[in-house]
Amino acid sequence: MIEEKLIGIFDSGVGGLTVAARIIERLPKEPIIYLGDTARLPYGTKSPETVKRYALACARILCKRGIKLLVVACNTASAHAMHTLRNELDIPVVGVVEPGARAAVKHSKTRRIGVVGTEGTIRSAEYQAAMHAMDPSIKIFSKSCPLFVPLAEEGWLDGPVPRSIAENYLAELKEKNIDTLVLGCTHYPLLAPVIAEAMGDQTLLVDSAESTSLVVEEILSSMNLLSSNGRAPQHQFIVSDAPDSFIATGRKFLGMNIPRAEWVDF
Amino acid sequence: MIEEKLIGIFDSGVGGLTVAARIIERLPKEPIIYLGDTARLPYGTKSPETVKRYALACARILCKRGIKLLVVACNTASAHAMHTLRNELDIPVVGVVEPGARAAVKHSKTRRIGVVGTEGTIRSAEYQAAMHAMDPSIKIFSKSCPLFVPLAEEGWLDGPVPRSIAENYLAELKEKNIDTLVLGCTHYPLLAPVIAEAMGDQTLLVDSAESTSLVVEEILSSMNLLSSNGRAPQHQFIVSDAPDSFIATGRKFLGMNIPRAEWVDF
Repeated sequence: MIEEKLIGIFDSGVGGLTVAARIIERLPKEPIIYLGDTARLPYGTKSPETVKRYALACARILCKRGIKLLVVACNTASAHAMHTLRNELDIPVVGVVEPGARAAVKHSKTRRIGVVGTEGTIRSAEYQAAMHAMDPSIKIFSKSCPLFVPLAEEGWLDGPVPRSIAENYLAELKEKNIDTLVLGCTHYPLLAPVIAEAMGDQTLLVDSAESTSLVVEEILSSMNLLSSNGRAPQHQFIVSDAPDSFIATGRKFLGMNIPRAEWVDF
Repeated sequence: MIEEKLIGIFDSGVGGLTVAARIIERLPKEPIIYLGDTARLPYGTKSPETVKRYALACARILCKRGIKLLVVACNTASAHAMHTLRNELDIPVVGVVEPGARAAVKHSKTRRIGVVGTEGTIRSAEYQAAMHAMDPSIKIFSKSCPLFVPLAEEGWLDGPVPRSIAENYLAELKEKNIDTLVLGCTHYPLLAPVIAEAMGDQTLLVDSAESTSLVVEEILSSMNLLSSNGRAPQHQFIVSDAPDSFIATGRKFLGMNIPRAEWVDF
């Protein structure tokens, strides 16, 4: 029997599990292998060069495990490293920035869109570039929200503290009368309720996970690479540090139990 | 002329500059070399094994630059790696945990002491071990405060958000009637005003920087290694990533300008 090829997904840590969850949901027959680079997280505060180097190291480890497609489930890595990865690898590479940008452009009626993300993602202006390539008339307003990641990791998702942090960060975006806000970091969907409360009813929140999973399906289908296996797939999780805390925090992001995470020396 | 030997100081990022500041103040003739491992920060969420490996890499880079003493200006690295570093290096190695513990034990009248720090530092229980070695009767209460580091790095040091985060973290320590609180992370001194407000007048805050600088002076003096140079020393700063943002954030921690930071590939 030929061994089944996997969908490879990587992120700096647990955040990309929100993307993995949507892929598993949409493609329940596909075995995935998820890599969390927990020894070097976060990526969001680091330089483009360093993030590129880390992303390439992650991609190479996954390629050795036999993957048929790579998902860069980290907005910062998608913002900095897509070009490098697509040049270096001979499998399709899907990031989260383009699908998220596309979903936002599709939804917005007023053509005024907000983007929130890490410092690295916001500074890269890749969301702006992607949306302007789709429609140059769109007005984009962006804001980095560095405390959202540690809040989400700690599981501090409601109550006065997250609410007041969200209000502080989002006040200037709220004034811009945007009708769509891109959650440009895979941690942020966990904070969607407080973000929605801070923005008000008129703003739709868009996260990349759903649209990324759709792109993955389209590519695998078009290349005739969808799994034909009938059995329930065995997913694998590998990390560069602290498997136990990955398992403990990760289940909140994946929405299901992670039975085991393997430690890999980079 | 023989080239002057340096005091080497390392931390995961900018936090240890609060320790560097006290050393520069106490020993104004000594040239220091400071290394911030910004490509792999933070250390506080990572496993003991990974922190040991990173600490040893930092120490080796500084040793190549010609240092006469190494200061581990990071509580998490001090908690996990002191033994390894002292075994591997043939120069004196000073951490921040022991001096901080000593200062707290000296100050406390009620023998009830609190410790706040990163998850790694608190889990290691090294402050407890150090204080109990000095006085086994002391009651110690500890609490990790993961959001304090990103708050300090962002410079979000006052107002309702930091105040309410501090109140939330510190409520359980406040109930314990401690008279001394160790700021067991080099970022926390920047948040001292809101921490003091949350704890009330009865609690003295102790940070390791002052007592660490004293230990450094004692060791150099006892080994006859104090600088005899009359010129104003040239300090050096090296980082593993993003020199520009190190310079920008670092000045708040050092309390003076950082003219230049050199990027070094690890």
